[in-house]
Amino acid sequence: MKNLINGGYKGGIYPIHPKADEILGKKVYKSVKDIPGEVDIAVFAIPASLVAGALIECGEKKVVGAILIPSGYAETGNMQGQEEIQAIGQKYGIRLMGPNIYGFYYTHANLCATFCTAYDVKGSAALSSQSGGIGMSIIGFSRSAKMGVSAIVGLGNKSDIDEDDLLTFFEQDDNTQIIAQHCEDLKDGRAFAEVAKRVSKKKPIVVLKAGRTSAGAKAASSHTGALAGNDKIYEDVFNQSGVIRARSLRDMLEFARGIPVLPTPKGENVVIITGAGGSGVLLSDACIDNKLSLMSIPPDLDAAFRKFIPPFGAAGNPVDITGGEPPITYVNTVKLGLEDPRIHALILGYWHTIVTPPMVFAKNMVEVKNEMKAKGIEKPIVASLAGDIEVEEAADYLYQNGIVAYAYSTEIPVAVLGAKYKWARGAGLL
Amino acid sequence: MKNLINGGYKGGIYPIHPKADEILGKKVYKSVKDIPGEVDIAVFAIPASLVAGALIECGEKKVVGAILIPSGYAETGNMQGQEEIQAIGQKYGIRLMGPNIYGFYYTHANLCATFCTAYDVKGSAALSSQSGGIGMSIIGFSRSAKMGVSAIVGLGNKSDIDEDDLLTFFEQDDNTQIIAQHCEDLKDGRAFAEVAKRVSKKKPIVVLKAGRTSAGAKAASSHTGALAGNDKIYEDVFNQSGVIRARSLRDMLEFARGIPVLPTPKGENVVIITGAGGSGVLLSDACIDNKLSLMSIPPDLDAAFRKFIPPFGAAGNPVDITGGEPPITYVNTVKLGLEDPRIHALILGYWHTIVTPPMVFAKNMVEVKNEMKAKGIEKPIVASLAGDIEVEEAADYLYQNGIVAYAYSTEIPVAVLGAKYKWARGAGLL
Repeated sequence: MKNLINGGYKGGIYPIHPKADEILGKKVYKSVKDIPGEVDIAVFAIPASLVAGALIECGEKKVVGAILIPSGYAETGNMQGQEEIQAIGQKYGIRLMGPNIYGFYYTHANLCATFCTAYDVKGSAALSSQSGGIGMSIIGFSRSAKMGVSAIVGLGNKSDIDEDDLLTFFEQDDNTQIIAQHCEDLKDGRAFAEVAKRVSKKKPIVVLKAGRTSAGAKAASSHTGALAGNDKIYEDVFNQSGVIRARSLRDMLEFARGIPVLPTPKGENVVIITGAGGSGVLLSDACIDNKLSLMSIPPDLDAAFRKFIPPFGAAGNPVDITGGEPPITYVNTVKLGLEDPRIHALILGYWHTIVTPPMVFAKNMVEVKNEMKAKGIEKPIVASLAGDIEVEEAADYLYQNGIVAYAYSTEIPVAVLGAKYKWARGAGLL
Repeated sequence: MKNLINGGYKGGIYPIHPKADEILGKKVYKSVKDIPGEVDIAVFAIPASLVAGALIECGEKKVVGAILIPSGYAETGNMQGQEEIQAIGQKYGIRLMGPNIYGFYYTHANLCATFCTAYDVKGSAALSSQSGGIGMSIIGFSRSAKMGVSAIVGLGNKSDIDEDDLLTFFEQDDNTQIIAQHCEDLKDGRAFAEVAKRVSKKKPIVVLKAGRTSAGAKAASSHTGALAGNDKIYEDVFNQSGVIRARSLRDMLEFARGIPVLPTPKGENVVIITGAGGSGVLLSDACIDNKLSLMSIPPDLDAAFRKFIPPFGAAGNPVDITGGEPPITYVNTVKLGLEDPRIHALILGYWHTIVTPPMVFAKNMVEVKNEMKAKGIEKPIVASLAGDIEVEEAADYLYQNGIVAYAYSTEIPVAVLGAKYKWARGAGLL
């Protein structure tokens, strides 16, 4: 109730309780059936033993959706209890979310139907998790990284609504541009593959499949009764349906954050422009790891880059502008990289110096990007920042302004670009 | 000069300059030979063309170490210039660091012989890099993560001092407990393997070998002229000499930070204790990824865990205490895990709830750890924290108090534990 009210939901909120008269200033009803008018959705925060009765009343009231937060069902071996509520849902045509979930958020309606902390950074990523703990990590990371979110959804025991239902919903949800899902199993792999294949053509789908390993699968079975299954089959399903598979929780979160920020590349030619030669080497390794193609630079382009860099710098790819250069060298080379139609994406390696301090670099890069955007040129740009702690503020500024940037990492920015490419290829855009 | 003075170095600092009389309040000498008394080390911050002459003067003054910051040698094709200074070094018995480096830090002597920002968080990790940009990432990350550092060293063109020389030095340096090195090549793989094999028995060695891939190797050749070589050979050298190989810059930094914090495990039995079942599954996957053995729990231990957890929780491994538990459940199960001699390491999965807020969890865990330490029980503990942003402060507190903890990640804490195990196995301690 507190989350629903403090979250700022504008629709009617009706508490149901057998004894109370008023909860947080709202009039209390003894049954959902006593509420005047239609009810869209019922949020259950009562013991499992009381759910079935209240769910029948929802059915009689023609409520079409139930958020079943209570636990004590299949995950504790209570299959009968879960089947009972499934039968009620089917009989009355109520779609069930859960049971055994933290609830859900839909930020664009200011709807916090959850027992977790309220979350309100509106954006375009819809995330779901089978587990409450992972859901809380999603919330914390999102807030910390200022990742805009359209929805966070708990799926828990998936007695009815599961991953492919969410894909179908978010497919047509204009507030959602990317869908990221954590799951321990897929109840219906065929249905998921079919829906994911269609949806991934329009919106990127990232999946973190937990229980990849034998030990993980055993833990999943004990956690949610999930049959984690043969990972090879999951791998095939994800590959065939254009899903970007995250290998770790942090990858899932970084992909969900970064992919919508980057424009879709128009081709495979990636160019690294770096002030730090050492970063250039590690960024090159990361390109191979993430299946990106380092463009082989034609002679005229090589000559064009050389005009801007010192004689001991290196054109080629990486373009090594060397460490002592002023901001204008970054500006000129990046502008060239954006303007030349043969180049499709840029990876920047920045090296913190007195000549080009972190925020000066960041502001210059955002200016160049915006200047090009005004001319109709949009390409994905990611950046790796090497320097003292001031680079953290610079990375943050770059990210908030459309350049996916990380401090102290050469691999994460390239992995995000690789994920964007993987999606674009699967969607037939390349 | 500013860094040397502001860094707090207590020894004599003598500026050499042909024209100035005073620099930053210090009397200036025209030549190193004019300085009264002995000189330990000369820091070069002059153009490459002037280095040879000044280096000869150092030789005549019997200076035994030269820090060659200037660039313009092998990395730009000036092999002759580099051979010239190498010959001078050999003739006079001067050990050369560089050229083409950012210098070095030795924090325990407050020595900042570098053009980068001053760094002063004393600790036990000695880091080196072939590249200046990577050196700056080391500084920034170290400061941000409050990683204690004994030394940060630039190796650049490695005309004389290289990775195995540093291993030999840090082997006998009591301020150093772990050595982490970024390199693009090894000039003498045999010497490295021999020294690393000996040193890694005493102190963990982490290596990030850049230029792993064909594209990376090409970039390395253009950057430092490094012959990055066949990666399979490097892999064998690292494996045979007990070196922990980092696959990414962030891994190298996290390993250098975390490994010295963890006590050495006495056996292979790892137990996961988690409040979040979903984290338990991902932590199990991460154990397999990082070659850790999830202990199979004997019946008596299973029964002992069950005494503390709710009936719908799961003993086994992970021990799933479930999400709604108060701090005492974490305390009791972790205490049991530390006290039972059959268990050798703990992985904690925390789930942020109102019943057990992040800092309450963190303080309780540190108390239990310290209570056990007072009884002579020390085991490595790592933790994954799932929750809203308050978990970041809790992770920080845990880390500063000897528990390697991360927010929003199930994989990084396990990777650090895996690296500690890898070292302990290689050193014959398991």
